[in-house]
Amino acid sequence: MSQSIAAHPDRLLPADPGTRSIARSLLERVQDLPILSPHGHVDAAVIEHNTPFPDPAALLVTPDHYVTRLIHASGVPMDRLRPENATPREIWRTFCEAWPLFDGTASGYWLRTQFDGVFGLQQELGPETADSSFDAISARLSEPGFRPRELFKDFNIEVLATTDDPLDSLSSHHAIANDAAFHGRVLPTFRPDAYINIANPAWASNVERLIESAGDGATGYRGYITALENRRRYFVEHGAVSADHGVRTPLTLKLDEAEAQRLFEHALSGNATPQDRDVFEAHMMYQMARMSVADGLVMTIHPGSFRNHHEPTFKAFGADTGHDIPFAVNYTEAIRPLLQDFGTAKDFHLVLFTLDETVFSRELAPLAGFYPSVYLGAPWWFLDAPDAMLRFRSAVTETAGFSRSSGFIDDTRAFCSIPARHDASRRIEASFLARLVAEHRISEERAHELIVDIVDSAPRRVFKL
Amino acid sequence: MSQSIAAHPDRLLPADPGTRSIARSLLERVQDLPILSPHGHVDAAVIEHNTPFPDPAALLVTPDHYVTRLIHASGVPMDRLRPENATPREIWRTFCEAWPLFDGTASGYWLRTQFDGVFGLQQELGPETADSSFDAISARLSEPGFRPRELFKDFNIEVLATTDDPLDSLSSHHAIANDAAFHGRVLPTFRPDAYINIANPAWASNVERLIESAGDGATGYRGYITALENRRRYFVEHGAVSADHGVRTPLTLKLDEAEAQRLFEHALSGNATPQDRDVFEAHMMYQMARMSVADGLVMTIHPGSFRNHHEPTFKAFGADTGHDIPFAVNYTEAIRPLLQDFGTAKDFHLVLFTLDETVFSRELAPLAGFYPSVYLGAPWWFLDAPDAMLRFRSAVTETAGFSRSSGFIDDTRAFCSIPARHDASRRIEASFLARLVAEHRISEERAHELIVDIVDSAPRRVFKL
Amino acid sequence: MSQSIAAHPDRLLPADPGTRSIARSLLERVQDLPILSPHGHVDAAVIEHNTPFPDPAALLVTPDHYVTRLIHASGVPMDRLRPENATPREIWRTFCEAWPLFDGTASGYWLRTQFDGVFGLQQELGPETADSSFDAISARLSEPGFRPRELFKDFNIEVLATTDDPLDSLSSHHAIANDAAFHGRVLPTFRPDAYINIANPAWASNVERLIESAGDGATGYRGYITALENRRRYFVEHGAVSADHGVRTPLTLKLDEAEAQRLFEHALSGNATPQDRDVFEAHMMYQMARMSVADGLVMTIHPGSFRNHHEPTFKAFGADTGHDIPFAVNYTEAIRPLLQDFGTAKDFHLVLFTLDETVFSRELAPLAGFYPSVYLGAPWWFLDAPDAMLRFRSAVTETAGFSRSSGFIDDTRAFCSIPARHDASRRIEASFLARLVAEHRISEERAHELIVDIVDSAPRRVFKL
Repeated sequence: MSQSIAAHPDRLLPADPGTRSIARSLLERVQDLPILSPHGHVDAAVIEHNTPFPDPAALLVTPDHYVTRLIHASGVPMDRLRPENATPREIWRTFCEAWPLFDGTASGYWLRTQFDGVFGLQQELGPETADSSFDAISARLSEPGFRPRELFKDFNIEVLATTDDPLDSLSSHHAIANDAAFHGRVLPTFRPDAYINIANPAWASNVERLIESAGDGATGYRGYITALENRRRYFVEHGAVSADHGVRTPLTLKLDEAEAQRLFEHALSGNATPQDRDVFEAHMMYQMARMSVADGLVMTIHPGSFRNHHEPTFKAFGADTGHDIPFAVNYTEAIRPLLQDFGTAKDFHLVLFTLDETVFSRELAPLAGFYPSVYLGAPWWFLDAPDAMLRFRSAVTETAGFSRSSGFIDDTRAFCSIPARHDASRRIEASFLARLVAEHRISEERAHELIVDIVDSAPRRVFKL
Repeated sequence: MSQSIAAHPDRLLPADPGTRSIARSLLERVQDLPILSPHGHVDAAVIEHNTPFPDPAALLVTPDHYVTRLIHASGVPMDRLRPENATPREIWRTFCEAWPLFDGTASGYWLRTQFDGVFGLQQELGPETADSSFDAISARLSEPGFRPRELFKDFNIEVLATTDDPLDSLSSHHAIANDAAFHGRVLPTFRPDAYINIANPAWASNVERLIESAGDGATGYRGYITALENRRRYFVEHGAVSADHGVRTPLTLKLDEAEAQRLFEHALSGNATPQDRDVFEAHMMYQMARMSVADGLVMTIHPGSFRNHHEPTFKAFGADTGHDIPFAVNYTEAIRPLLQDFGTAKDFHLVLFTLDETVFSRELAPLAGFYPSVYLGAPWWFLDAPDAMLRFRSAVTETAGFSRSSGFIDDTRAFCSIPARHDASRRIEASFLARLVAEHRISEERAHELIVDIVDSAPRRVFKL
Repeated sequence: MSQSIAAHPDRLLPADPGTRSIARSLLERVQDLPILSPHGHVDAAVIEHNTPFPDPAALLVTPDHYVTRLIHASGVPMDRLRPENATPREIWRTFCEAWPLFDGTASGYWLRTQFDGVFGLQQELGPETADSSFDAISARLSEPGFRPRELFKDFNIEVLATTDDPLDSLSSHHAIANDAAFHGRVLPTFRPDAYINIANPAWASNVERLIESAGDGATGYRGYITALENRRRYFVEHGAVSADHGVRTPLTLKLDEAEAQRLFEHALSGNATPQDRDVFEAHMMYQMARMSVADGLVMTIHPGSFRNHHEPTFKAFGADTGHDIPFAVNYTEAIRPLLQDFGTAKDFHLVLFTLDETVFSRELAPLAGFYPSVYLGAPWWFLDAPDAMLRFRSAVTETAGFSRSSGFIDDTRAFCSIPARHDASRRIEASFLARLVAEHRISEERAHELIVDIVDSAPRRVFKL
């Protein structure tokens, strides 16, 4: 791989020369628009304190389970990729040896784009360049211009949402918002999974802390609901625009209060079954929708991942270590109880994500094409890749048009990858629109309006930015 | 959008110049062939009486749930789109404001093609042209040449099948067939859903009427079966070629007579469960197949739509208001009981439709590639769109070839959209075949034969026209 | 169809001229590499004895259920395609009449390529050329250079794996391996389905023979397990590299020994239920994985086919007569028990196949992108066709890259089709890579390395050749 491909102005654009030329002009229209990132996992404290980035391995390898998983698949034991067991330079060497594995992957594309665009590497990665590239990136990381706040500006980020625990004080967000010297918006996101998933071993203690600190003196299920409402309000006051939910399935249920209370107490006593978990989660999704209707937080749902599939790895290295595996989901029947009551509620926004592509054309586009509340979440996780994003557009557009999509979501904790991810998304949107223009399905003038809407207006509109 | 795209001779054709040129020549081969529409929802009485079309809104907006659903999704309350609540001109204005939502959708494509080809509109739709376009279309609608019978001829329709209640007198069909001045064929289709789905609140009274009027004096389940057989014969005598079934799932079951009778009585007494509904429907699909083997009516099955998903909308505005949402289906095990007994029956034709694309390559192409009775229904409802139709061909052809498909089915109640829909289908077939030619997978001469077979011979053969 | 398309140097390559030119150069890189066929159904005895091929019908039509199924679907009764009922020439005529059905199918492509490349037919097939083509192929079959061993060399086959009964003496494999005059490798594959699937009517007697001949004197479940281990060892000693499993579903389970023994005895007594079948098969897949970890045989799993869907055809003509129909599968939860214990076992290779395309992006690529043992099986059966293979690459590469795939597997009993199938696969790999190059996602130099890896190194690595 020559370095040139990462810098090629036509990367990701369609090969047909006529279509490519249309795509180029569409891309140009949006290439300089600011980045809006309404869902991601960057730590606000890093921006508050403008913490320098650590070494290349800690920045680009160890926290990125897209990267470590594929190296692991090639036969490298997980501990060779863990900072407890290996030095940054050792980890970087392991990564450089594994670099050819990433050809054709989304991660490889983002990394290559960063190496070229952010770090200005002049060499192809590989075992021979492991040390020199480590040194080059390290040098870059020590430059004063290479701090989070400087990059935030360089990257042209306007809005960056983080993902936060409901009991988080949001002090970093507060400090950033009140810092006249910093012009970006860093918004918290309410993510109550650890207080809703009763299979989480910490659930009971989490809930206890939640009720104590925000239950207005109420106890039990009532205190629990009150505390969640209070903390959501606190998040709204600190700039949050959305509440995010990582659930097992898209199931929603409207339980009566007595039944909910019974399940809640049952779970607190430690006797809940896996089925109880699903039912309580389904009930709480209904409650979260009810609260979103009341407080205006956009509701986002991310279901369908079998978390910690390989128990030995989970036991040794914890969660988020690369073995969350998707499974089939059904939205049509599962989400219905929620939509019956809130599907047409005023200003309610519900963004539905999936790791199961089959629901794009079959369920999500039809739902988003009727319910004013429902928006199509951007292709997520294993699907936020060039071909998968094109399959998404092809699957949903003929039913739902362009107005029902959320806009791109980078969902990343890798701060330096943000521009590469948004750039890739813009290139794919340009490619898809260019094909429709080339096939005389939309006019080129209209495609120019649409790409601005997709890249800029949609996230503002859907996430109430 | 300039008006030109709707009139562009290359619309929907592939962008690659070499492939496009092949597609053009294939399209030319079939562009003037008559329209065969073996499944749709036009009202025969309109053709019998040559009823002038009403206003633009009543013709193009209010009855088309593809259109109203997307406007509703954008936040327009349903009642602003209902003739009881708004004047035609008001509805048309609402539609014109919403027009940009339809970019990239199948509905948008069909509408634009009609505006250009049928109504000769010289202006792009939008809020500023709402009144002028309303007036221009209204003027066109009042022209004597713009009546159903004249358009039937202009559109080059040879056969148009309607969808009819089993107790329909078919007087319109009879009148049309006996009108020497009219040369098109308008065929009834036997659609007994309302007499089979025991969850339909009107089922018991429907069945009572059915038995009384056609049961030959028999009562109960026997009378019911006899009456269905009799009404099918009546339809055959009036030119019907097919019986259509909108079922919840593709399940089929062979119950013994005593069990069927028990379920039937149970349902009549109002005590049936949702599971009873599925079992009785499955049993009746088996019975319908048995009758098709006997009387020759082509059997078509349309499963997998969750009807009336949003109950408040259903209660306020009734069925077919845009919130029927597809769900996953399985054909392989579900259809087996029927195919065990009738899969190789002489002259039995069974056309299987799906809203769940995943069964195209996995189940339907393999089934149609073995059973002489099984044909692949054309992509249906949310899937009768350019990209989806290409995905269908790609998914089924390598297993089942071209001979096992039903040919295009417009399934529409929008009479004026018929040419646009068939034209779009022909363009996509030409595009798919052109790619195979460009990839040297079939010869160009053979592609010319195949496109005629797909457009003209297949529907005649499969639907026994 | 002119003969030329089968010989066209650009067949199956993408239409866009720039991409095609890249694809051509990639194809050239691998066109002369030897054929590695690590999974197929050729009979080793045919190679041992260098048995002349029979007539054209027995070679190309009757044993190929891809071919007979589509002819059957067109309305030809199965018995007209059976050697018991029709002469070879009659069967060949029937086939020639049906030949246009195969346009666009994978089978048609392979056959056409054989007619051109292997048999040198100068005429297009059809009713008029039935006799002359029969004679031409017959003449070719009688040539001394047209024997299995000569073709093995002409086809440039290096390794050919067969599929064998666990009690097979492997005498043919032994003879071939010890024949200094023959340079190809013909490897047995351990396929124990008939000893594992308790629904197989011959299961009990199979198991009895197995235990008697290889149980080391042990009886019952212990003897059964011991015998399987022993026969696997025997296969390893005779060059086997893999064990193949045609299971109903991908379910795996770790039963304790007492429960397994109970189920085993229950099945022997003839009282097993369909659910017992699934549970016992799931348990045995776990055991097979355990044995593979111990003896090094690559484990391949082929689930998801509803065998013998049409019982009347099965009763009249037996298994493998064209009515095995795929159904939906789930791997994520089903394969987990096996992967919990063996997913990271040293040198364990587990190749997962599917007939349900939806699991490619959703489950298989994520699994293969984490577990060092898991490899993506090549698109199989109804999916080993040009478009389907491209969909596979598009679905898996962005998550799993290129290193996690098995390489192409022809899975065929049609010896003369082997070159056509491998050639088609190489063309599709070249097409996919060429697109990534054209889109500047990988460099052209790297694509040249990757195609060699895919075609040559991957099967050697994954199947331990």
